[in-house]
Amino acid sequence: VSASTIEERVQALESEVRRLRDELDVLRVVASYAPSIDGGAVADAPGFWTEDCVYDSDNDEPLRGRGAIEALAERIGQLPIGVGHFMNLPVIVVDGDRATVTNESNTYHPEDGRYVVARVSANRWELVRVDGRWQVATRVNRILDGTDAGRALLTQGIHESLRSHE
Amino acid sequence: VSASTIEERVQALESEVRRLRDELDVLRVVASYAPSIDGGAVADAPGFWTEDCVYDSDNDEPLRGRGAIEALAERIGQLPIGVGHFMNLPVIVVDGDRATVTNESNTYHPEDGRYVVARVSANRWELVRVDGRWQVATRVNRILDGTDAGRALLTQGIHESLRSHE
Amino acid sequence: VSASTIEERVQALESEVRRLRDELDVLRVVASYAPSIDGGAVADAPGFWTEDCVYDSDNDEPLRGRGAIEALAERIGQLPIGVGHFMNLPVIVVDGDRATVTNESNTYHPEDGRYVVARVSANRWELVRVDGRWQVATRVNRILDGTDAGRALLTQGIHESLRSHE
Repeated sequence: VSASTIEERVQALESEVRRLRDELDVLRVVASYAPSIDGGAVADAPGFWTEDCVYDSDNDEPLRGRGAIEALAERIGQLPIGVGHFMNLPVIVVDGDRATVTNESNTYHPEDGRYVVARVSANRWELVRVDGRWQVATRVNRILDGTDAGRALLTQGIHESLRSHE
Repeated sequence: VSASTIEERVQALESEVRRLRDELDVLRVVASYAPSIDGGAVADAPGFWTEDCVYDSDNDEPLRGRGAIEALAERIGQLPIGVGHFMNLPVIVVDGDRATVTNESNTYHPEDGRYVVARVSANRWELVRVDGRWQVATRVNRILDGTDAGRALLTQGIHESLRSHE
Repeated sequence: VSASTIEERVQALESEVRRLRDELDVLRVVASYAPSIDGGAVADAPGFWTEDCVYDSDNDEPLRGRGAIEALAERIGQLPIGVGHFMNLPVIVVDGDRATVTNESNTYHPEDGRYVVARVSANRWELVRVDGRWQVATRVNRILDGTDAGRALLTQGIHESLRSHE
């Protein structure tokens, strides 16, 4: 085995390992949404988002910027009830310093001694790498209620993922 | 450090990195079920399954072949209501060009302004690598209702995973 | 490219690949909780826990030791109803032979032909590597109901994860 062959193989390994690391890092950012918001982590929750992030949900006015994320964590974290934001498994596509994640999510709210599922929705997350750290630039969330918007987010994500991993 | 030692270490790395890649690829196939079906991704949903796949659920007649998966995506994607198929975390065992995944799942259906959990069940997924791409050959789904079939899928998957990762 | 440079790069790869492997192995242990308990895997469920493990839930007296885990799997696995323990995506921090996982979870119980969400809670898992195998040393589980304990588990996990991955 020549040194140059080893060099090429090490280079290929470095590139592949970087992609695996990116996938797990992006997964962790998405996984951090629920505990950071439901836990009311006011100081830390904004750190998962870019400075000029947009969180666009049909449930509310879009949130813009880290201050809005901080206010969200503060509001949820001070509710006299527990709220859970649960994530279905994410479909992750990493492309250099950008990544998209497609998944469904649901919310649990307490009611009459049980928790009820108030909302089931589709998400498209767009992340960017900023100073070596993955952050959410935009999250679009649309209810799954038989209308088109939520389904369109899901089919777009699936289509892009299939093409990206060919 | 001799060249042969480096060669051996690079080989070991290549083998391990392939296994990590396989685990994340298998995870993505399972994660793609919900968005591809709930979104009604008629063109893309069958691509996650083998030509002669079987999706065997005690809820319905077994689905056979990609045409049946396409029909499922079409039917769910045209419902006047939103439906969510949610996946519990998967236990993945990769063995060469075959993989099994064990997990629980649940469905959300709308009812009276809320979503209700119509079904909680156990899954065993068997995947194969076809032309470099992981596809579902069989998925067996059994309700968790105190009967044996669902529990047996879970205990089998746990047992195989423990032995495989010894 | 000098041999020493390759040596350093291979070493860096080995270290990084070990961390990726650890993250996926820890994920699998957490993913194994639900199928091992809900399936009633009496023989295998204790193997995911250390000999002197503690599972401390505000729902019950703490469980101590593998015998208590075995008894839990036996009890759940013999219920005349199906029970599902579902995990939200985990935030994993690996540090050498120790790891912590922060996530939310919920339980599904049958009621009137549906499944109801009886409980939504926060978890902090502490794992250790024993003879090369990741095992749960402690799991602390606190309900998310507007009180502080559950939220504190989440904010602690988020804070540690952010600092660890800087």
